Amino acid sequence: MLSQTAEYALRAVSCLAAEAGTPLSADRIAERTAIPRRYLTRVLQALREHRLVGSRSGPGGGYELLEPPGLTTILDVVDAVAPIPRIERCPLGIESHRSLCPLHSAIDVAYEKIRSAFAEVTLAQLVGSKGGRGPLCEERTPRTAGARLRKRK
Amino acid sequence: MLSQTAEYALRAVSCLAAEAGTPLSADRIAERTAIPRRYLTRVLQALREHRLVGSRSGPGGGYELLEPPGLTTILDVVDAVAPIPRIERCPLGIESHRSLCPLHSAIDVAYEKIRSAFAEVTLAQLVGSKGGRGPLCEERTPRTAGARLRKRK
Repeated sequence: MLSQTAEYALRAVSCLAAEAGTPLSADRIAERTAIPRRYLTRVLQALREHRLVGSRSGPGGGYELLEPPGLTTILDVVDAVAPIPRIERCPLGIESHRSLCPLHSAIDVAYEKIRSAFAEVTLAQLVGSKGGRGPLCEERTPRTAGARLRKRK
Repeated sequence: MLSQTAEYALRAVSCLAAEAGTPLSADRIAERTAIPRRYLTRVLQALREHRLVGSRSGPGGGYELLEPPGLTTILDVVDAVAPIPRIERCPLGIESHRSLCPLHSAIDVAYEKIRSAFAEVTLAQLVGSKGGRGPLCEERTPRTAGARLRKRK
């Protein structure tokens, strides 16, 4: 149900969280996350506009998180690029109804549950859990994994 | 986050649940739900294929639910036309990973929560709740509401 853009944004920030303190080039992020390079540029731009990610040019530069990974949640990232909607008005456009009907109330409740689930998980938790495994299902030898992914395209 | 198809399917079955026992023509469903007529045909076809809706031709015919509204949940309807995914394999396609990384585990947990929320609500609950208000935010005078909706197209 998450959009492709939200999925990619989460991969990108997870990659940055795993290397917190070390700026990464877009090429390196693309390699580790298997995000198409052009698409990654757009995603990083959106994350920059929402002040989740910053970039520095020059030697030693690259992209990095602007906040410590423990202060950013999955919800923050999703809301920056493809917000989970709330249903606040009747989608059928009937003006006389100021409160939601039971169907759209039920859908809105479900959306709120997914928002809550995403708000509970920080990027630090993604990086630090499961016995040290990185957040992106990556191989122990990322170069090999990257090569394998590229071959499939 | 729900697809347009899922939203329309829910409107259609809610409309049928509100009139359980009385087959409705596609034109009548379209009028009450504000679903474009061609789109509605495709949605009803999918609901028929999943044995949620049946149809009878001839006088007094039309579309109707095949089960009592208390036996069908929002999840049943959504899964029939645009299933909420489970993430069972690494989306990055890395073959060596048989368990999910923390990021995709967290996304899958959220998907499971939305599935649970939808599984808790039956069509009967949509029809019967909130002081008798119908499931589709409809006016007390549906003919007027329908005319108003048509004007907007």
